[in-house]
Formats: sequence, structure tokens, C-alpha cells
Amino acid sequence: MRAEQIAEEFPEVTLNSSALEAVRLLATGRLPGLVVTDTAGTPVTILPASQVVRLLVPPYVQDDPSLARVLDERAADQIVGQLSPLTVGAMLPERPAELPVLHADDTVLELAALMARLRCPLIAIVENDVLVGVVTASRLLTLALHAS
Amino acid sequence: MRAEQIAEEFPEVTLNSSALEAVRLLATGRLPGLVVTDTAGTPVTILPASQVVRLLVPPYVQDDPSLARVLDERAADQIVGQLSPLTVGAMLPERPAELPVLHADDTVLELAALMARLRCPLIAIVENDVLVGVVTASRLLTLALHAS
Repeated sequence: MRAEQIAEEFPEVTLNSSALEAVRLLATGRLPGLVVTDTAGTPVTILPASQVVRLLVPPYVQDDPSLARVLDERAADQIVGQLSPLTVGAMLPERPAELPVLHADDTVLELAALMARLRCPLIAIVENDVLVGVVTASRLLTLALHAS
Repeated sequence: MRAEQIAEEFPEVTLNSSALEAVRLLATGRLPGLVVTDTAGTPVTILPASQVVRLLVPPYVQDDPSLARVLDERAADQIVGQLSPLTVGAMLPERPAELPVLHADDTVLELAALMARLRCPLIAIVENDVLVGVVTASRLLTLALHAS
């Protein structure tokens, strides 16, 4: 079985998508993460849901996590309710050393090994550098369950 | 809003649960991860789905990822279909430095900040050291979407 055979269609965002759109896609689809592509459809980075949550935390709290503990409930609610007006591109973390991207003809073992090593819940599958689908951890685990 | 108000019930596994049970829970529920508890109900660790995928990769391939690339499709399918006969306890990675665990009265901002910092898609919520629920990244993002 090759990556293209198990890849699923997935909403994708571009560097110009708004933070609000990224949050909406993840929240409504209960997705494990999003693939960010450039205008040519090439994956630029993968944003696991835990990293999109970073949008809910203002930079001054990210820099000093102890601040989160001293703010009261009401203040905390207000902060988390203020979604960033930025685009996805403007809020990307520094480019990761290795992207969770594989090719359409790679095997399920390569998918599992890369996902475990990079601790990423989804892998982008490309053909000629263009995104053709996504393989999630749930998809791989379901496959293994049925094969065993 | 406090952690206990947004925590969801979640299937939990213990150190004695089988790897097969962990995979089945994640795959059928499309969960972002599992909380592993001891017999007293205290969280011992959190297993993101990407780390449960590690069960599908034999240790010799984890040690030498280039092996995954040289195995053909048929061999790869067979390996991924062989679920570990081990218990969850036997296959835990070394204990992480900091567990994604918060208390029932912690705020949503603390949840978001910890999730982003530890890159973990779920946080275990405890009261008197006993697991009372789980807050996922999807839950936090949905909350922010409705508040904004």
C-alpha cells in the first residue's frame, strides 16, 4: 500500500489565509492539524492543532508563561477570545528543520516512522511537489487495526 | 471559565492496557491522543496519536529510519499490520520532563499556553491528582471561535 492510496482530502490553508480561517477549519472539522501551502500548492509547513492553539496566547504570555497563572478567569477568557488578526504566514513559527512531507509512492512504514519521529499527527503527501492529500495518525492506526 | 467546565470525558488506558486496545480506542474515536493512568487514576503520561503510531514501527526501523525506505511495499504492509503484543506500560517512552496536566480550576489561558508550549494535542485535567477529564486542542479552538 502506498501513501497516495490512503491519503485523504483535507482542507488546506495558504500563507495568506487568516488566522480566523485556520481556527475555524480545525475547530469545525476536529482536524489534527493543517497543511499550509504556497500559491503553487507546495506544502510550506504543517501546523499541528496544538500549534494553532498558540494563536490564542498573546506573545507576552508565550514569553513568560507564569503570566498565565496570575491572570484571573475573566481576563483569561477575554484573551483567549481575541483571535489574531494576522494571516497564517505572519504567525508561522520558524521553519522546522524537517517537514512531515512524503511522496505518493512512499510506503505505510515510511509514513508511520516519519510521523513517530517528528511527533506530528499528520503527513502531507505530494506528487511533483504539489499537495495531493494528507495521512493522519488516525488513518494509519485504523489501517493497522484492520490488517492485524 | 475554568478547566473543569470545558473538560470532556475521554477513554483512558492504564499501564496494563494492551497496545491493541490503545490503537483501537484512538482509531475508532479518531482521538488526538490518550491519557495513561495508574491504578489510582493519576495520569502517568499522555500519548499523542503520533506517538501511538510508534507501535507500528519495529524498534530496528526506529533506530535506523533508512531501513523504512529500502523495504518494499509488501514487506512494509506486513510490518505495520503487526501490532505490538506489549502493554501500554512496556512501550512508554522515557518519562517526559513535564506532563501536560492541569487542575480543575486552571484557566483557559493556562490550558492554551501549556498546550502550545508542550506541542501536545490534549491536556489531562486532574482534581486531587485524579483524572477528571481531558481538554483537546479542538475544544479550545471551538471555544475561542465562539467567543470571538
